[in-house]
Amino acid sequence: MAAVPVSATIQADVLHSFVKQVFERAGVPAEQAVDAADVLLYASRRGVDTHGVRNLKPIYFDGFESGILKPQADYKIEYETPITARVDGGHGLGLAASVWAMRLAMQKAQQSGIGMVAMRNSHHYGAAGYYPYMALQKDMIGICMTARIYARDHDYGVIPTFGAKSRFSTNPLSISFPTQTEPPWLLDMATSTVPFNRILMMRDNQQAIPLGWGVDANGVPTTDPSQVSFLSPLGGTREQGSHKGYGLAMMVSVLCNLLAGGWDDLYGDDPSAFEGYKVDGDSHFFAALRVDLFRPLDDFKRGMDAMIRALHETPKAPGHDRVYVAGEIEHETEQQRLRDGIPLTPVVLDDLRALSAQYGVPFEL
Amino acid sequence: MAAVPVSATIQADVLHSFVKQVFERAGVPAEQAVDAADVLLYASRRGVDTHGVRNLKPIYFDGFESGILKPQADYKIEYETPITARVDGGHGLGLAASVWAMRLAMQKAQQSGIGMVAMRNSHHYGAAGYYPYMALQKDMIGICMTARIYARDHDYGVIPTFGAKSRFSTNPLSISFPTQTEPPWLLDMATSTVPFNRILMMRDNQQAIPLGWGVDANGVPTTDPSQVSFLSPLGGTREQGSHKGYGLAMMVSVLCNLLAGGWDDLYGDDPSAFEGYKVDGDSHFFAALRVDLFRPLDDFKRGMDAMIRALHETPKAPGHDRVYVAGEIEHETEQQRLRDGIPLTPVVLDDLRALSAQYGVPFEL
Repeated sequence: MAAVPVSATIQADVLHSFVKQVFERAGVPAEQAVDAADVLLYASRRGVDTHGVRNLKPIYFDGFESGILKPQADYKIEYETPITARVDGGHGLGLAASVWAMRLAMQKAQQSGIGMVAMRNSHHYGAAGYYPYMALQKDMIGICMTARIYARDHDYGVIPTFGAKSRFSTNPLSISFPTQTEPPWLLDMATSTVPFNRILMMRDNQQAIPLGWGVDANGVPTTDPSQVSFLSPLGGTREQGSHKGYGLAMMVSVLCNLLAGGWDDLYGDDPSAFEGYKVDGDSHFFAALRVDLFRPLDDFKRGMDAMIRALHETPKAPGHDRVYVAGEIEHETEQQRLRDGIPLTPVVLDDLRALSAQYGVPFEL
Repeated sequence: MAAVPVSATIQADVLHSFVKQVFERAGVPAEQAVDAADVLLYASRRGVDTHGVRNLKPIYFDGFESGILKPQADYKIEYETPITARVDGGHGLGLAASVWAMRLAMQKAQQSGIGMVAMRNSHHYGAAGYYPYMALQKDMIGICMTARIYARDHDYGVIPTFGAKSRFSTNPLSISFPTQTEPPWLLDMATSTVPFNRILMMRDNQQAIPLGWGVDANGVPTTDPSQVSFLSPLGGTREQGSHKGYGLAMMVSVLCNLLAGGWDDLYGDDPSAFEGYKVDGDSHFFAALRVDLFRPLDDFKRGMDAMIRALHETPKAPGHDRVYVAGEIEHETEQQRLRDGIPLTPVVLDDLRALSAQYGVPFEL
């Protein structure tokens, strides 16, 4: 991959404070501003830069200005049981609404062993991995997914196998398991082979992409990044198992969109109709599970450590000197960035300075 | 794919009766024999022939004879809560033990909304999809996984990304969602790109395999099926997302092996040791979830139907006239086989006749 230009580095706590303050100045309630800053800094600390402070202006502040995103998330519980809740995100800041929803799932898990929360009418909630990461702080298993399913074509979406138009967003799923001394195991994966911005980067660099990342406007797999209209599900082609990535994408959409009620607002009387469907905003699914429902926590965590070590000890393929586990690279990046600061590209730096000027919040490197 | 030779067809109910009777003659208790026959016939009816009556002799009856598999499954609950159980499969017939375990999960879901059961010390349990299929009969969401994780190398297993030796079995996961008038949606997928027998079949046909299905003894991807020592996780290569398939394989192993206690029998005092680990038999994870914890069941089922229709209506890629949803092809095969009978290959026919002679159970086509 081409090196990303870096204009500056900034300490994580300084950046967190800045993000929190500009959110507040934009009308986000103080506690929600802290939660939202936590989500963005999690991604920026761990090197998940596609989901970090890079999005502050183009997704969240531009969303406030255009009115599609309300700074004050008016989330509410629509229905609940001791172990579940169906909630409405209130078309507010998805970052803050989602932290609230994951806390609700964790409270239910604390009391009843498991908690599951499905949310509709939300917006972009940052890195899916943050919410399972919250569960880790309480030594629970954490699960999170986010999805849109499209009844009509949608730019940049993911095709079903044999399809020529998109029907899904990249529908990521994330799950975490607590460990003892090893870094926490944390999987955060889109159910597409790659995200669209990976293809755009290859296009900018005039590089061919592997067959299986995306298809052209007719649904034909292509190696030309400038021809890609839609993403392929994980697996890429039927021969390489794309029906599995497609199946996982559908699973995520059902658990998010359908359990939350985010996929039937306009349902009419004609059961054969799907054209009337409206998907309004993002839907999410959050779950927390207490390990001691099955085994003593320490036994589980010791077993996780041993599994991870067994994987680390796997003989390596030629050209590779490590076998990683999920979340390990991000954990090491986090250690390094907490020490050396978070790198900012010129574009992000300009965005942050513009927000600093607009909202009167000092921005110092 | 080369056509499979068929020697005979047999009606599903006739075959079910035969399977049940030979199981009984081998010492399987009557009720367990019915359950085990149900699992095998599910696969044979739906065209999942790798997991159907084909395995009756080579896996189950040869297992009885060699003593690694006890006809009478002495399963028991080791620990339980209103929503969970950790159970021991007793080294018996995994088919019957697993039906018992899924029933336990469903009973808990009926009473408490969700039921989750992790089982260790089990054996090959047939097609993973059967257990979520059981949940569908009660209009619940069903989930099932099965796994082994290997601390040492193992033939035919799945490598972690960048690894040169296997660490996982194919670790399938399966999930089902109830529908209204559409066939039930049922995903049943290995977390490897393909199963090993797919590669063996290509070898027998002297056909090259695509890069990404498997690696040679040194961990290098190969297109020569005779050189494949280990399977690749879904995605195939890192570039195509194999770290996602590997992550899913690990997730399945944690939920099965670790929650069930199937991965720490020999744990010593030295927390740095993993060599002492023993994985004894298969471990499974079963879950059932009531939809009405979130939404009225009919709303959910209507939404499923509409999602499925939206997917069916997706414009098609060139050369394809249908977009399928998970479980659809198997459902259509089942309709056809219930009408026309289940095809038996010469090898399977010979096996069934041998069992007929050995146990004195008439076998009539």
